[in-house]
Parts: sequence; C-alpha cells; structure tokens
Amino acid sequence: MELNYTGGLVPVIVQDQASREVLMLAWADEEAVRLTRETGYAHYWSRSRKRLWKKGEESGHFQVVREIRVDCDEDTLLYLVEQQGAACHTGHYSCFYRDIDGGELARPLIDPSEVYANKE
Amino acid sequence: MELNYTGGLVPVIVQDQASREVLMLAWADEEAVRLTRETGYAHYWSRSRKRLWKKGEESGHFQVVREIRVDCDEDTLLYLVEQQGAACHTGHYSCFYRDIDGGELARPLIDPSEVYANKE
Repeated sequence: MELNYTGGLVPVIVQDQASREVLMLAWADEEAVRLTRETGYAHYWSRSRKRLWKKGEESGHFQVVREIRVDCDEDTLLYLVEQQGAACHTGHYSCFYRDIDGGELARPLIDPSEVYANKE
Repeated sequence: MELNYTGGLVPVIVQDQASREVLMLAWADEEAVRLTRETGYAHYWSRSRKRLWKKGEESGHFQVVREIRVDCDEDTLLYLVEQQGAACHTGHYSCFYRDIDGGELARPLIDPSEVYANKE
C-alpha cells in the first residue's frame, strides 16, 4: 500500500492493544515506518529534534507494535502496541492524562527525571 | 488551557467511548473546537474543502462528544464520542478498516452512496 506522506510525514495514533487506551500521537517518515515493520519496535520522526527516534531509546519504555492499520485516505496510521512502562515523557501511561479544562485524569506511573536526561 | 494550533489546526483523534475503537483522525481549528464544546457535536476543519464541517451534516451520522482530552504538549485532542452510524465516508464504522498490507479487517456498515452526495 502506498502511503500519502504529507511533507514526508504521516501521523501515527498509538493505542494500547490490551487496554485500548489511546497513548499518544506521533509522526513517522518512510524510514521510521520501515524500521517499525522490520524490528517490531515503534520508530518515529521527531519534529522538534528533526531526527529518527526509537521510542524508548532513552527511557527503556519501548513500544512493541502488534498491528498496523491504515485509514481510508492512506495518510494516517494506527499502531496497536504493547506499551512497556509509560508512553508519555511526563511519566504518565498515556499522553492524554488531562481533560480540555486541565483537570488531571490520571497520576504519573513514574518519575520522569529517573528515566530521561532530556525530554523524549 | 491554551492549545497549540500549528498552522491554525490541531489533530483530533476520535475514539468510540463504548467500543474503544479508534474511528478517525480529523483536524480542528479554534472555531471547530468552540462549536464542538458549545453544541456537544463534533465539528472539524476540512483541509480538502477548506471549510468548517459538522461531522454527519450530510450523512446524518453525527458524533456526540462525551469527553475531550488534551495531550502533554497541548497540540493534540482526543474526542471520546458516541458514534451514530458509520464514521468513515466509505461506509465503514472506523476509517481504520485495513491493515498496512491492504487486508480488510471489517466490512462496511452501510452503502455510502445512500447517505453521501459527495465524499465527506
């Protein structure tokens, strides 16, 4: 299947295959998608750092990708993953730990200062 | 909470609150977010048609938004919705009805020609 990369990137929705929680939205270029499929571990393109990134490379909190789905327009991916540890650089299991009014819906799983030297 | 709109838009991940299936990825501008919060029905910005769009305005397949979550970077939203009918303009319940090799994971719920004059 030919994916439609906009500006070289596709958005990737990441969902925990077991809990069905949406964990994060990330971006992937063609190489990140290829490496994800080859290795079974989620790879992304970091727009802020402008480089390829293996999720968990710093924190050890890898994502094992169990299934990859593609949307109708072939411009968005959905990764169903086994999340090791916390998906969010804040230490929360999911990046979506607040409602739109700022109310906290979940507590951090870990203290991020223990696993990150820099913000992932 | 101040959202970080990139080029005036934020991506919105849409998840069925009951089934936990991820239904689609859409985009919203500030007005679409405001209208969604005011009315309780999902509104988006159509990048192809360059206009505000109430999901279901043509098909009748509205999305009642039960909860809005925001991610750590405040640049992505997650809508937990009650999906009426099919989310996808192809007639599928979810836009993610194929795996990355093109294999179909689900059959359409409806014949889209019965509800759409134009592609939503």
